Amino acid sequence: MKKFLNSIDTVLTESLDGFVAAHSDILALGDEHKFVRRKILKPGKVALISGGGSGHEPLHGGLVGHGMLDAACPGQVFTSPTPDQMMAAAEDVNTGAGCLFIVKNYEGDVMNFDMAAEMSEGVMQVVTNDDVAVEDSLYTTGRRGVAGTLVVEKIVGAAAEQGMGLKELKTLGSRVNAATRSMGVALTSCTVPAAGKPTFDIGDREMEFGVGIHGEPGRRRERLKSADEIAEEICSTIVTDLGDAARGPGLLFVNGFGGTPLMELYLMYNSARQIFEKHGVSIARSLVGSYVTSLDMAGCSITLSRLDDELVGYWDAPVHTAALRWGM
Amino acid sequence: MKKFLNSIDTVLTESLDGFVAAHSDILALGDEHKFVRRKILKPGKVALISGGGSGHEPLHGGLVGHGMLDAACPGQVFTSPTPDQMMAAAEDVNTGAGCLFIVKNYEGDVMNFDMAAEMSEGVMQVVTNDDVAVEDSLYTTGRRGVAGTLVVEKIVGAAAEQGMGLKELKTLGSRVNAATRSMGVALTSCTVPAAGKPTFDIGDREMEFGVGIHGEPGRRRERLKSADEIAEEICSTIVTDLGDAARGPGLLFVNGFGGTPLMELYLMYNSARQIFEKHGVSIARSLVGSYVTSLDMAGCSITLSRLDDELVGYWDAPVHTAALRWGM
Repeated sequence: MKKFLNSIDTVLTESLDGFVAAHSDILALGDEHKFVRRKILKPGKVALISGGGSGHEPLHGGLVGHGMLDAACPGQVFTSPTPDQMMAAAEDVNTGAGCLFIVKNYEGDVMNFDMAAEMSEGVMQVVTNDDVAVEDSLYTTGRRGVAGTLVVEKIVGAAAEQGMGLKELKTLGSRVNAATRSMGVALTSCTVPAAGKPTFDIGDREMEFGVGIHGEPGRRRERLKSADEIAEEICSTIVTDLGDAARGPGLLFVNGFGGTPLMELYLMYNSARQIFEKHGVSIARSLVGSYVTSLDMAGCSITLSRLDDELVGYWDAPVHTAALRWGM
Repeated sequence: MKKFLNSIDTVLTESLDGFVAAHSDILALGDEHKFVRRKILKPGKVALISGGGSGHEPLHGGLVGHGMLDAACPGQVFTSPTPDQMMAAAEDVNTGAGCLFIVKNYEGDVMNFDMAAEMSEGVMQVVTNDDVAVEDSLYTTGRRGVAGTLVVEKIVGAAAEQGMGLKELKTLGSRVNAATRSMGVALTSCTVPAAGKPTFDIGDREMEFGVGIHGEPGRRRERLKSADEIAEEICSTIVTDLGDAARGPGLLFVNGFGGTPLMELYLMYNSARQIFEKHGVSIARSLVGSYVTSLDMAGCSITLSRLDDELVGYWDAPVHTAALRWGM
């Protein structure tokens, strides 16, 4: 394993220290590294909290700030944060208007966020499950929550910033999740620092089609195809799953898993955009980059979110986080 | 080689098509993919043009837009753009106030930008050479221009946006370059698509210390050390090279080479920040991410730019490009 680190035990805390120091204008660290939070809270705003295993950076810590999350709870790499992390975060950032947990659909995350929600006051939850690759997975009952979670966090974050109430935010989050589909493909494995070796073996000419963001198996292992062939299968799966609703304006998000350069991500975007347009999707907004990663895994996912005028407005609203910033 | 592509011959043009389509609100493509330019020019402003081999994305195309470059000329991967690309760009984006070329110090780039400058009207040049690792290199006489180039482009870009004249911009660019030092380390090689295999071999426990952004050799090959040890050697080299001038406010830029996850980059930032502070540097501004890459190479570089109030003002000024955006 070749990584920049000092000791396996301190990878997460040292990285969090650096992260918060680099963004000390907008972020602060909770006690015992339990969470990353917005430096200045907005009284009366519903607090948004997300989190999950580390290794997906910039998700979720990089999405804390004006117009998105109020706090993010980082677990160890690919390991759910503990309920006390979410409880501590909720206590710290809930200014009285309640708290919405945004949770990716993995059994550990769902269980731990559930426990924290039960033991905290005024908490509701949205669970994301945008991955169309498989129904159940290594760590999931039902579909996995993957890159589309960023879209939910951006849109719900903008609505919360504008004063929307807790119940309405939950409804909005569920609506965005239901309008969002993703699927990914891996060319290489990731390597978890504590494991010290690749999570899975993969041949020199193979890809894992439908891979999860922890390197968990997808639909099948097969020979590496061209970018157009890969995009064709992902995009038509997404369009088929959305049905007639796929037609019309959408957000196209091509997400790198960490080890894939931007040059290839934009090439995939180029393929995906043309394929979606043939299916009647009009690409109204775009995002390309490595935002929901799997450590150093080479690969990418394609996400399509259906948009309407309200959602476009929230997507375009000002945001100031470490990873996403515009309008301010 | 495992990459997302359709054909080696069209990697660059397909990627550029995707890039400009994803950012069509701010960018346009020159004829025959010769350059990427700002969609809307600002008459009377000095035009800033950079470029170089592709494979370093988001540099330079991702830095075209309000507050930075007016155009960027992409060569084939790790290959200088041709003079006619820069001439076409200059003709297209020079609104009459002249043109400044910002050129990384590589023999091919310097030669081709020189030829274009001689054959165009009203062009001056700044050559960046911030890499303290080696004096001469595989493709360079003198020091290489690496990640510090982004700092030059941001600061000169802000000054140009505010109306500074051509000669003053050249002086400012040279001053920022002289105040900037970088050094990098590689854990893996990159793979150029047309070559189809890694640029260099490296052992499972080795690193290339002082590596260039094309994978060219640095100071030495040695066993992989801890993050703190790596940061210590890079930072003290930078501080020694800057001399007394290193003390005081600085910009710390930890740059990923493409295959290194953010978690590790923030950990390196955490190490580097503490080391610089011990040397009397006060970290006034920070940037962490993969901005000046070497395709899929795992590794990172550390850049320190000395700042004064004027430079801080330009660094903070609004920018709207694909890769850097704030204040608008």
